[in-house]
Amino acid sequence: MGGSLAWTLKDRQACQQVTGVARRLETVKLAVEWGVVDHATTDLDSAIREADIVVLATPVRTIIEMLPRVGRLAKPGCMVLDLGSTKTQIIHAMEKLPERVQPVGGHPMCGKESSGLEVAETDLYQNRVFVLTPLERTSAEALNLAQDLVRALGSRPLLLDAQRHDRLAAASSHLPYLLSCGLMAAAEELAQEDSVLWELTASGFRDTSRLSASDVDVMLDILITNREAVLEAVGTYSTQLQHLIALLEAHDERALARALGTARDRRRRLFS
Amino acid sequence: MGGSLAWTLKDRQACQQVTGVARRLETVKLAVEWGVVDHATTDLDSAIREADIVVLATPVRTIIEMLPRVGRLAKPGCMVLDLGSTKTQIIHAMEKLPERVQPVGGHPMCGKESSGLEVAETDLYQNRVFVLTPLERTSAEALNLAQDLVRALGSRPLLLDAQRHDRLAAASSHLPYLLSCGLMAAAEELAQEDSVLWELTASGFRDTSRLSASDVDVMLDILITNREAVLEAVGTYSTQLQHLIALLEAHDERALARALGTARDRRRRLFS
Repeated sequence: MGGSLAWTLKDRQACQQVTGVARRLETVKLAVEWGVVDHATTDLDSAIREADIVVLATPVRTIIEMLPRVGRLAKPGCMVLDLGSTKTQIIHAMEKLPERVQPVGGHPMCGKESSGLEVAETDLYQNRVFVLTPLERTSAEALNLAQDLVRALGSRPLLLDAQRHDRLAAASSHLPYLLSCGLMAAAEELAQEDSVLWELTASGFRDTSRLSASDVDVMLDILITNREAVLEAVGTYSTQLQHLIALLEAHDERALARALGTARDRRRRLFS
Repeated sequence: MGGSLAWTLKDRQACQQVTGVARRLETVKLAVEWGVVDHATTDLDSAIREADIVVLATPVRTIIEMLPRVGRLAKPGCMVLDLGSTKTQIIHAMEKLPERVQPVGGHPMCGKESSGLEVAETDLYQNRVFVLTPLERTSAEALNLAQDLVRALGSRPLLLDAQRHDRLAAASSHLPYLLSCGLMAAAEELAQEDSVLWELTASGFRDTSRLSASDVDVMLDILITNREAVLEAVGTYSTQLQHLIALLEAHDERALARALGTARDRRRRLFS
């Protein structure tokens, strides 16, 4: 996500200079060699000191850990944007930043299954929704700058309150992940009795289970930092699934047809 | 499914003559015009009377309704194969067929989201598993013939007991469908409070919800005729999902990471 963001900004000449910070020297070398950034370094502190805009592209809890350091080192007026998948805890940590920096939360809706410089691309952000979650203290100028940056990437800015974002993301993203893992766990249990199950998994199972192959560290970080909203979304889901099951148990074919038809119609409208 | 089967057999010259039966005269005309079959008719009775092999490609309950008619009209030694998605109730109905016909249950693992002659193709069955569920009364000759037909389509025959098939299909196919519908129903409920939800549905939501767009009549027919096995699979799933949720509720990050990692590993092995 970070590599694609840097590369897109450089490719579109949206910034005077794009500096990449990586932990490994090899990544730093490759980023410059491939032209993903203008300049790259493993020295986070000096990169923060020189930046007008700092974009943090790590898991949520790493962002929270890094924020005090950014607060200590950043230039006056520096805008601090993050790409974390959950926003409430990050916004809370951003509130503690010193007055001279301008924090804005961000979450682009363009996940990739794999991460790293090797999979960076300049059209990842094209035509995507990019959620921005400003703080009360965020100035109009900083928010405008963040929106300009989002548009420069080819994305559409969508301003949301952090808690609202997290509640919606729990339903649209974190819930599907857990369902997918639950499906794999159920299949694993049944396959222990009868492993022929794996020979009968066709495209429907493949798609419904896809998210369970996601990076566990990334997803764990998301679930833990959005625990309340995720539990609420799973509760809503369980009630809805139980409703469908109750109709099947009760042989109420007409009501079941209606409920399944509502789901079908919405899904077809949503992705047509 | 029926159109693709006929076309593939004709294309590969696997049969002396392939006759298609459709309800609408227009479909009959098109099937011949497009060369999907050698001969087509709306007259089911005469088609059954002349056939050495009858393949029933309709929803499960329609197959069950048609079987007595096939039993009355079929030639001595005629093999009766079906493509129904659930097998126990069909096998039960096939047991009542007269002695002179040779019934075999079948279920090719190659679903399509849309049906009809317009979407027929000659490679639908290529490299697929095709489950055959013979009856006790099915002769070795008839079962060999069914397996030859499956291989002629390019599929791999897999012999299973009907109840075993239904239990496995409940987990691998009918459960994912219900999860997907439950997800859409939960999203619909949450979107009624906050419709911005639909702007945050990215590729993960798209894939996990895909099956909910399936044809409701087809799926309802499957759920109703495989009720017990579906309810059992949903039970196993609910317990597994509840286990993941309990770990999240208990802040047991280590155990949650282990459970999610097991799901990830299996999914990656399964579709690599």
